[in-house]
Amino acid sequence: MSALSGVLPITLTPFTDDGSVDEGSIDSLVEDYLGAGAHGLTILGIMGEAAKLLDEERERVLRRYLQATAGRVPVVAGVSARATRMALDYARRAEDAGAAAVMLAPPENTRNLDLVFEHFRLVAEAVSVPVVVQDEPVNTGVVMPAPFLVRLLDEIEGCRYLKLEETPTLPKITAVKQRAKEQVGVFGGLGGLYLYEELLRGADGIMTGFGFPQVLVGTYERFVAGDRAGAQEFFFRYLPLIRYEAQLGVGGVTIRKQVFARRGAIASPHARFPAPPVDELTLAELDDLIAAVGL
Amino acid sequence: MSALSGVLPITLTPFTDDGSVDEGSIDSLVEDYLGAGAHGLTILGIMGEAAKLLDEERERVLRRYLQATAGRVPVVAGVSARATRMALDYARRAEDAGAAAVMLAPPENTRNLDLVFEHFRLVAEAVSVPVVVQDEPVNTGVVMPAPFLVRLLDEIEGCRYLKLEETPTLPKITAVKQRAKEQVGVFGGLGGLYLYEELLRGADGIMTGFGFPQVLVGTYERFVAGDRAGAQEFFFRYLPLIRYEAQLGVGGVTIRKQVFARRGAIASPHARFPAPPVDELTLAELDDLIAAVGL
Amino acid sequence: MSALSGVLPITLTPFTDDGSVDEGSIDSLVEDYLGAGAHGLTILGIMGEAAKLLDEERERVLRRYLQATAGRVPVVAGVSARATRMALDYARRAEDAGAAAVMLAPPENTRNLDLVFEHFRLVAEAVSVPVVVQDEPVNTGVVMPAPFLVRLLDEIEGCRYLKLEETPTLPKITAVKQRAKEQVGVFGGLGGLYLYEELLRGADGIMTGFGFPQVLVGTYERFVAGDRAGAQEFFFRYLPLIRYEAQLGVGGVTIRKQVFARRGAIASPHARFPAPPVDELTLAELDDLIAAVGL
Amino acid sequence: MSALSGVLPITLTPFTDDGSVDEGSIDSLVEDYLGAGAHGLTILGIMGEAAKLLDEERERVLRRYLQATAGRVPVVAGVSARATRMALDYARRAEDAGAAAVMLAPPENTRNLDLVFEHFRLVAEAVSVPVVVQDEPVNTGVVMPAPFLVRLLDEIEGCRYLKLEETPTLPKITAVKQRAKEQVGVFGGLGGLYLYEELLRGADGIMTGFGFPQVLVGTYERFVAGDRAGAQEFFFRYLPLIRYEAQLGVGGVTIRKQVFARRGAIASPHARFPAPPVDELTLAELDDLIAAVGL
Repeated sequence: MSALSGVLPITLTPFTDDGSVDEGSIDSLVEDYLGAGAHGLTILGIMGEAAKLLDEERERVLRRYLQATAGRVPVVAGVSARATRMALDYARRAEDAGAAAVMLAPPENTRNLDLVFEHFRLVAEAVSVPVVVQDEPVNTGVVMPAPFLVRLLDEIEGCRYLKLEETPTLPKITAVKQRAKEQVGVFGGLGGLYLYEELLRGADGIMTGFGFPQVLVGTYERFVAGDRAGAQEFFFRYLPLIRYEAQLGVGGVTIRKQVFARRGAIASPHARFPAPPVDELTLAELDDLIAAVGL
Repeated sequence: MSALSGVLPITLTPFTDDGSVDEGSIDSLVEDYLGAGAHGLTILGIMGEAAKLLDEERERVLRRYLQATAGRVPVVAGVSARATRMALDYARRAEDAGAAAVMLAPPENTRNLDLVFEHFRLVAEAVSVPVVVQDEPVNTGVVMPAPFLVRLLDEIEGCRYLKLEETPTLPKITAVKQRAKEQVGVFGGLGGLYLYEELLRGADGIMTGFGFPQVLVGTYERFVAGDRAGAQEFFFRYLPLIRYEAQLGVGGVTIRKQVFARRGAIASPHARFPAPPVDELTLAELDDLIAAVGL
Repeated sequence: MSALSGVLPITLTPFTDDGSVDEGSIDSLVEDYLGAGAHGLTILGIMGEAAKLLDEERERVLRRYLQATAGRVPVVAGVSARATRMALDYARRAEDAGAAAVMLAPPENTRNLDLVFEHFRLVAEAVSVPVVVQDEPVNTGVVMPAPFLVRLLDEIEGCRYLKLEETPTLPKITAVKQRAKEQVGVFGGLGGLYLYEELLRGADGIMTGFGFPQVLVGTYERFVAGDRAGAQEFFFRYLPLIRYEAQLGVGGVTIRKQVFARRGAIASPHARFPAPPVDELTLAELDDLIAAVGL
Repeated sequence: MSALSGVLPITLTPFTDDGSVDEGSIDSLVEDYLGAGAHGLTILGIMGEAAKLLDEERERVLRRYLQATAGRVPVVAGVSARATRMALDYARRAEDAGAAAVMLAPPENTRNLDLVFEHFRLVAEAVSVPVVVQDEPVNTGVVMPAPFLVRLLDEIEGCRYLKLEETPTLPKITAVKQRAKEQVGVFGGLGGLYLYEELLRGADGIMTGFGFPQVLVGTYERFVAGDRAGAQEFFFRYLPLIRYEAQLGVGGVTIRKQVFARRGAIASPHARFPAPPVDELTLAELDDLIAAVGL
């Protein structure tokens, strides 16, 4: 299997208006992402409301995404869980369904890093696909300093990728790229707010939920083609919108579903409760910005 | 259905040495709890490692506990989840299996109390059994001040019980008992460390995971029989052990499983990883204390 | 005294290379801020390392800032403290030194909002200058929902301004502007990242530490002159830099001091330890961005 | 100077009813502590409301405590602060006033342990008295795992003592005592709730604010005299009261001041605002417990 790189959006999990998983919208959503040029998909992440799915729903979302993607791009499946045994179960199912890799964050509030290390080791050794280590202190409550990340990536054979979400991502990209002995693929995040600089620092791509993946793809492809000035200019053009979406944090999923629903990529903007309410002004400002940047 | 009161231990979820759910040990464990005089059982709580179970395992634990209890005492089933829809699913299954009530904590890190209120309302309205509101700020990250708890209990018809876990529990018991217009059953917690004073403040019982429920039962029964001095003396006799167990916090489940396994109530002390390791000295000190208080 | 409005930068506290307060650099810094068109100054905030000053140093910084400003613009002085009595002392000294207002955040980790309310009331009643309520949950650990902020501003006469720092600021600006009965001045923050939208929502200005106040001033002045398109265009032009600085969070002070030192506004970039280290690449990227946006 | 050991209460800072520092009550308080057999005093800790004192007040409290103690026992002075420079200033003043040691916690929310290490190093090298490393994650937000504490104590010559406050203290005592190459004095805390077991694990004493230091002294002295059974029995006798006080956490200072004021050790129970209110029932329960254990 070839290495992961480029733009792998953190995908949505679409629901019908009454809150059921909408498998049909997964099909249209996959076409939307691939139409935007995505180099892969990252399903069942935070933006995918994975922690708000019953196991049976998670399985259906996983299967449908793999089926709809049909091998056109690699699919990374989130398998984070409170117990190692749960993560193992999710990881095996992901591998079985055809995922190219699994993404794993530390179990929440596990501040003892020896336990975190063991958690990653146990999952990585149980599957044959690589593990993307997810650094996500805001949602997990677990701070992983750069030297610990390097140790994870060097000492656990299956841990071959890193996805960063802690602000700032830039020094960690540099630290990991310089210090890791093994070849490591590093992905940025933060809604794309620092994509250009992440690439400058050596990031291999980005995994994030920004509503217009073509902007990330356009930046990335100019950059890897050697056109840095063009990448920067293209990126800056869309920055007002990227920045606006990035402010929304945990409320982001509600808004992003509006964005995707408006262009018909999903049938309903329904997000599972509890989700922060979105005021009308925010939607209006978002529409204005989308128009202003020409999307 | 009669009201809940007395000692309803937060029960363990037993596993085999290889980490599978051990349904046979649920049967022996129920006899252990009932043999100790428990007035009910609280299953699938934090001490029951509920967040470390797959949905399919959760369902088996639920069914087996109800079957083994066979109506001898009421069973309260924990249904806390990240999404209201998940909690609704768990609550309906609990009701269907014969649970006398469901216990629900706020979704984690939902600091907007309007969303928390709505979460409780939606679950309470979807089932016909009462809801035990669980106040558990350490694990949920959600602080619910006494006036908010009173509002929940007064305005949502199904929310008829409160289980407290924030230190100190005592002022909240008094505040809720004095201010709630509706009849509310209030339960203490904190490993039993303040049981006597909780009863003095008007608590209707306790839900906690302390390894020797007969101590809680003995205290409670003396108290409600009007023998306060006897209740206090009995309680103080076991306080050195209660206090020792209470220190263990999140590590408590590992230790408590050792305690139950030693007396044959469960086949294996296995707790799901990641769980804090327990040092040998702690086990030895615990054994000494058990002997010292004559248990 | 006329009302506060416009751009009131959160000012730096300059130190010499050996870490002493550098009063001479306060003079040059004031000229730098005023030269950029600042409509006021907000001294002794988080960016001013106020919590890292001895009381004697705080007093010298306060006096020197007021003296250097010499009444040309209003000066708001931060007076946040762990104890109400300390905040009172700081507030009285600020008033005595000639501050136009004091800025006050809740005492850290005071999650009981009744105590927070009383804290604001006691300080506001002790001084004759108005109080700017600072909403800063990241550093204080205190979440103040919009209805609580409205109550503070409506019920405490001296609390006449609000400075927002929680992401997102926009819905809170709208909520407070719509619901507060009293005339309230609302200021945005977050490094200026949402200044244009904050103004659209009705903000009266901004208090933030962004290293190029002229950008904020230029945006604000175009906006209040009625030239929204011009304000937006001007703002967007500098967004790449604003965004870059905003990522730095608690590391921001170190970087910002580099920015001010490079243009000679302060003699040394020294920030008090412990402050996050800044890597060379970050400084280089920052220089590139400053050049790229033409500053 | 001989090594620190035994019971060194975390002392109160007495105020008059109007909130001023009450130096006269420091004198009577010192006699109360020494009359109870304290082997030293730990001033300006959290229970001493140190973070609620202006620098000038802190200096007066320091000087008065040293003067009143008059060399009869060693005095450890808390010097924790947000900035290393502030801690250095406090530490030099403490040494100058005659303190036998200084107690230092990590700067709040400094999750980068390299910065924490450097903070301790800089302070330890600036004074000639030893440093007591305070492990206090609840108030500082900084988790220091046992291996990090061992490194601090082994590598920084001046860091010769450790005071633990994280629950549970017991495994850390064992870990540090076994692994530290240097001779390290370890002190327990947690209101005395685990004093007997802390001593069993090798603790050299305790620093805590429990209102009846004679109970801690009686336990400690029996223990070091070799009478373990007597120490345990004595300790268990007072456990109901120790446990009750320990529940109060951040509210503890208000209650403890009531306890000391009732026996005339301080003139007023005033604690600085904001402090959690104490209900009348809590005071009544406390009085009953004091009577019940025969104090």
